[in-house]
Amino acid sequence: MDRPELAHEIEVTPAFHDLDPMAVVWHGHYLKYFELARCALLQRFDFDYLQMHASGYMWPIVDMRTKYIRSARIGQKLRVSARIVEWENRLKIDYRITDAASGELLTRAHTIQVAVLLATGEMQFVSPPILFERLGLAP
Amino acid sequence: MDRPELAHEIEVTPAFHDLDPMAVVWHGHYLKYFELARCALLQRFDFDYLQMHASGYMWPIVDMRTKYIRSARIGQKLRVSARIVEWENRLKIDYRITDAASGELLTRAHTIQVAVLLATGEMQFVSPPILFERLGLAP
Amino acid sequence: MDRPELAHEIEVTPAFHDLDPMAVVWHGHYLKYFELARCALLQRFDFDYLQMHASGYMWPIVDMRTKYIRSARIGQKLRVSARIVEWENRLKIDYRITDAASGELLTRAHTIQVAVLLATGEMQFVSPPILFERLGLAP
Amino acid sequence: MDRPELAHEIEVTPAFHDLDPMAVVWHGHYLKYFELARCALLQRFDFDYLQMHASGYMWPIVDMRTKYIRSARIGQKLRVSARIVEWENRLKIDYRITDAASGELLTRAHTIQVAVLLATGEMQFVSPPILFERLGLAP
Repeated sequence: MDRPELAHEIEVTPAFHDLDPMAVVWHGHYLKYFELARCALLQRFDFDYLQMHASGYMWPIVDMRTKYIRSARIGQKLRVSARIVEWENRLKIDYRITDAASGELLTRAHTIQVAVLLATGEMQFVSPPILFERLGLAP
Repeated sequence: MDRPELAHEIEVTPAFHDLDPMAVVWHGHYLKYFELARCALLQRFDFDYLQMHASGYMWPIVDMRTKYIRSARIGQKLRVSARIVEWENRLKIDYRITDAASGELLTRAHTIQVAVLLATGEMQFVSPPILFERLGLAP
Repeated sequence: MDRPELAHEIEVTPAFHDLDPMAVVWHGHYLKYFELARCALLQRFDFDYLQMHASGYMWPIVDMRTKYIRSARIGQKLRVSARIVEWENRLKIDYRITDAASGELLTRAHTIQVAVLLATGEMQFVSPPILFERLGLAP
Repeated sequence: MDRPELAHEIEVTPAFHDLDPMAVVWHGHYLKYFELARCALLQRFDFDYLQMHASGYMWPIVDMRTKYIRSARIGQKLRVSARIVEWENRLKIDYRITDAASGELLTRAHTIQVAVLLATGEMQFVSPPILFERLGLAP
């Protein structure tokens, strides 16, 4: 759980088109920030969207939870961290969004993805070996 | 919990711009479908976004969970139901998306909203009387 | 040009998630409304996104112009019309968004699409026969 | 017109959630990339969205044109440039998106914005002095 190499952090600044009439980020747009962090994390392991496909699997999100603690505003520098916390049977990633200046926590979330074999469309109840190889973990 | 008058259902058909490269709805766009159902439900109680504001409160989402069971595709007729299941201290709404033709369940979700007094920005730990009035419920 | 059968109209009501901090629809979201009208129009001719593909072509948008005259607001009933005005060498569609109640014009736009042969990725400088067939027009 | 100080360039990499079923950026999402470049440009002149408001004006987009030449793909590094080309009566900005590696042109666009006095909602047919001041130009 505390493997620093399984975590990654990016910086995001909310754009005008992400704001709602309260001039804060609309709640659904945070999922884009999480996706950016998740993709950057998986890319470090040569396991981006195209590489997943090339390996014969897709990894759809089957469960997502987000806790909204404080709103994010336009121009606010945010840090978005993603950390892999489960991988044996499914890929669970935890996220935290903090204000870059103060470190204040704004949002917490997790996503759960499962492998689906592209050839058959069948959901896999154990993560395929390619995931362990890419993450550099024993299966 | 089983008050039928606290539920509402809309029909949604995924648009081309909601699709991802797998030709299914991108997971974040379901939050828009839930929002459409939630707004239609609250509008029935004269409590839409503008009426919330006029009553002196906003109701930000503080917690959201979504379980993705099956993907939705372009042109697929979907039923999106929203049902109020808690209101005393916070507004909890459950959602279900089903295929309109077969009734098959595609997605389940809930959102939790809390009242924030516009004048002070203070979060309310008990729902304000206006919510009970609008919903026609005893506080 | 004045063939009524080449036009279609839908009704759209802006959603909360389409609003910007001025509480009006963000300018980029109108492209979604145009797409909904365009897709509904082409569907009438059995030429939706999947049917285009099945016929061996995709029709990417190569040119788009939008004139924003008045802002649209949450809950405002809008009429979005789409009309095919050129088809010989490219597919040009004109759009108008009006307030459903008053008929006031809010937005005008056009898109230009060209056929691209899926098998080769080559842009076609004359519209392929399938377009004329579907539209019921002489080539 | 050829004042280099009136231009700005940013780098954008398309995200997974910007892709359509053809695995290229959906045409409407380019407007977000243009907005990011425009906002970065105007910020250099202390004239971002909040500063516009503080000066008593908003600057809605009244006209937008986009020419799509080549598609952008996931992970492709893009350069998005924005250049102010008119300012006397309205703010016209030209945009170009190029592939960062090859320099190939993918998209061209322009937006036209006019000043609207916040106090009255009246459109201004001459740009207000604040714009010239911020841009460092004689009116």
